[in-house]
Amino acid sequence: MDKEIKEGLVSIVGEGNYTDHLIDMVSYSYDASEHRARPACGVWVKKPEQVSEILRLATRKLVPVIPRGAGTGLSGMAVPLRGGIVLDLSHMNRILDVRIEDRLAIVQPGVIYDDLQRALKPHGFFFPPDPASGKVCTLGGNVSTNAGGMKGAKYGTTRDYVLALQIVLPDGRMMRTGSKAMKSVSGYDLTRLFVGSEGTLGIVTEITLKINPEPTAHSTAMATFDSLEDAGKTVIEIMHSGIIPSVLEILGRHTLQAINQNTELNLPEVDAMLLAETDGYTQTETDYQMQKVLEVFRKNKPKEVAQAASEQEAADLWKARKSAYAVLARIKTHFVIEDVTVPMGKIVDLLKGIEAIAEKHSLMIATYGHAGDGNLHPQILYDGDDGHEAEKVEEASAELFQLAIDLGGTLTGEHGIGLSKAPFMTLEHDPVAMEMMRSIKRVFDPNNILNPGKMALEG
Amino acid sequence: MDKEIKEGLVSIVGEGNYTDHLIDMVSYSYDASEHRARPACGVWVKKPEQVSEILRLATRKLVPVIPRGAGTGLSGMAVPLRGGIVLDLSHMNRILDVRIEDRLAIVQPGVIYDDLQRALKPHGFFFPPDPASGKVCTLGGNVSTNAGGMKGAKYGTTRDYVLALQIVLPDGRMMRTGSKAMKSVSGYDLTRLFVGSEGTLGIVTEITLKINPEPTAHSTAMATFDSLEDAGKTVIEIMHSGIIPSVLEILGRHTLQAINQNTELNLPEVDAMLLAETDGYTQTETDYQMQKVLEVFRKNKPKEVAQAASEQEAADLWKARKSAYAVLARIKTHFVIEDVTVPMGKIVDLLKGIEAIAEKHSLMIATYGHAGDGNLHPQILYDGDDGHEAEKVEEASAELFQLAIDLGGTLTGEHGIGLSKAPFMTLEHDPVAMEMMRSIKRVFDPNNILNPGKMALEG
Repeated sequence: MDKEIKEGLVSIVGEGNYTDHLIDMVSYSYDASEHRARPACGVWVKKPEQVSEILRLATRKLVPVIPRGAGTGLSGMAVPLRGGIVLDLSHMNRILDVRIEDRLAIVQPGVIYDDLQRALKPHGFFFPPDPASGKVCTLGGNVSTNAGGMKGAKYGTTRDYVLALQIVLPDGRMMRTGSKAMKSVSGYDLTRLFVGSEGTLGIVTEITLKINPEPTAHSTAMATFDSLEDAGKTVIEIMHSGIIPSVLEILGRHTLQAINQNTELNLPEVDAMLLAETDGYTQTETDYQMQKVLEVFRKNKPKEVAQAASEQEAADLWKARKSAYAVLARIKTHFVIEDVTVPMGKIVDLLKGIEAIAEKHSLMIATYGHAGDGNLHPQILYDGDDGHEAEKVEEASAELFQLAIDLGGTLTGEHGIGLSKAPFMTLEHDPVAMEMMRSIKRVFDPNNILNPGKMALEG
Repeated sequence: MDKEIKEGLVSIVGEGNYTDHLIDMVSYSYDASEHRARPACGVWVKKPEQVSEILRLATRKLVPVIPRGAGTGLSGMAVPLRGGIVLDLSHMNRILDVRIEDRLAIVQPGVIYDDLQRALKPHGFFFPPDPASGKVCTLGGNVSTNAGGMKGAKYGTTRDYVLALQIVLPDGRMMRTGSKAMKSVSGYDLTRLFVGSEGTLGIVTEITLKINPEPTAHSTAMATFDSLEDAGKTVIEIMHSGIIPSVLEILGRHTLQAINQNTELNLPEVDAMLLAETDGYTQTETDYQMQKVLEVFRKNKPKEVAQAASEQEAADLWKARKSAYAVLARIKTHFVIEDVTVPMGKIVDLLKGIEAIAEKHSLMIATYGHAGDGNLHPQILYDGDDGHEAEKVEEASAELFQLAIDLGGTLTGEHGIGLSKAPFMTLEHDPVAMEMMRSIKRVFDPNNILNPGKMALEG
């Protein structure tokens, strides 16, 4: 690290909050994707003013700054591709205010998702996006990737809950966006421009989130199908049923097998299992909705339909679903997880297309995901030390992206573009939209010091 | 109109779809605000390609283009402040597709809000924002102002339902933003940058909207209060009650009096009336929620609490609320309607502040609005031919805006900035945010030909 930069950083954050130790640089070199690159140094910040000073220094020295929360991102967005300074926001982890009458919480970006849920629970409130990594991921990361989760179909994603932000721009200037009122249409929506911008426009130093009263009643049921086609048709018919399940998940055969190999859950090994939850404030309401779901289940040639009779039974089913990512990760030395998303009417085509791609490349692709909003997670399992396998995975990924786009979908429902999908951005976005995105990047970050190399913004 | 421009426009849209007749120019000179300015001509367009050709011509000639739907805006955003071409999109009024399994509808911008509702009803679906002008306003206008309505607290505003847009930029280039998938985090959120941008960045020529299954059960109740304080406290306590009413409206004394003078509804003339609706798929669910509301009503010294016993009784109450704007508009020759919005915890302060401003200026301000999301509509009634009165109204408006900002709120919850609130933008937004908005305007519209003079973007 340049001596002047190091001295500058130390004078801003203090000796103990600066590091260029190898062990830390290795830690900062990765996130939950397969990408790796080492930074020159890292700093732990505590205050927006420190962020401002650091960015001013970085702009003067033209050194990259990579904001980082918990590093749970799946697309490489926290990987310091061009080196530089990792701005570690995990110590800015205070819940600044919970204002129930105003239906909002004000938090620092380093607050862990579950910590906010725990603070809201005594009030009967929750922050709905529910990312799978909720135990460790930070709310700043949620904002940067517009995090979603199992409740997306009914409750939307992070974007739908961010009311206001405090931002530090690359030149060190601070600004506030949005409003702490529930509703505002005052000027351009800078708030949502930052949601999902992956740390490429500015550093989020304070977040105001809308929160919801938590439904108190739930019903859970499952159905298994001997054909993907029937499972897909079931999803489509549920959309027509007049209700929205709070959760509607799908697990494919490989996923079910992997769960069985690693747990005592003893799931049926069929082509597809659908898991549904309905919610409300009364059992009557959740039962009414679940009846609709069960009717559709029964109409579409299920092998088995079962409603969870107890909370324990329901918990077991959700545990199975939630274990998918981890049990699959253990099967081979390497894996890539995608999050292609299509309109729900195309779920059957997406499922079949994934199977065809797996067969073509003789790859194991285990699929599961959020059928209720068309967001599937094909997890490609492979031996990373076998160069040929790795090559096949790259080809298969590219074909998956093309498939999603051909079906009228998107490259990413909730994991973001980062590095993994940057080469594919032009599949989805026309040249004019790409140019506008790049122009917006230049407005906010004219020197390209913020998380450079991500999201195909340099093209 | 410049002869070359006129000939160009006629060759694009045809003789019958071009006008510079005085009567049309007068019609195009206003919207539902008090602002007036005449354009040079107007064109009715049918296709995105025509919009593209017109914008290319306008850019070459540096002539302003003002997009217009039904002209129901309340802030002057459709008023051609600098003359130019009114681009009338009301003939682009086709519902292109309703895809229930994908939970979306694809529409042209000139489709009237209620026409979409009618198309969705047979499927049991609806598009929730519910603007008061739904019978006449267009969906393009809804997108441009991020329209909201009575269901905002539970269902959010237009922003929460726009999935994708087709846009024509000022230089005539076309682009698509967003995705027809329910969820996407692929690149910057250009879609929401356009929502609420008041026609200043590009012309929206196609809109993809997320739609919801419609709740089938409803409960309605009302409570009256002898003090604003008790009514405001009631709103705050409802926020703590663990449920969100689908509607929570407030009507002040002047509003109740005006309704009584113009209808047979015979409402109690108290300081404040609260009207609440809860919804769900079962009567049990709506009753459960309404019980919570009624409990809070009863705790806060109401004069009267009543639950609508029949659909007719409920309909009467909603008719009363919906008539407020029109009956108030008749009381004096002129009126201005604001839509200041504050965090719900500040509703009492806002109500009292409005009263104080009315008293200070000896003005009649009738208040009603969406208490459930903190969005009030103080309607200032005055004699516009009396210069002194008009001056007082301006002063009172400015004080209202300052009050909302002082209470941590926003200038506008759903009516937009347009011309009316442009001078007050810097009250709400810091200089850096203002600069970023202006820079974004320059990226999309470097020649400032699109709806110039609005939203304080030229400062």
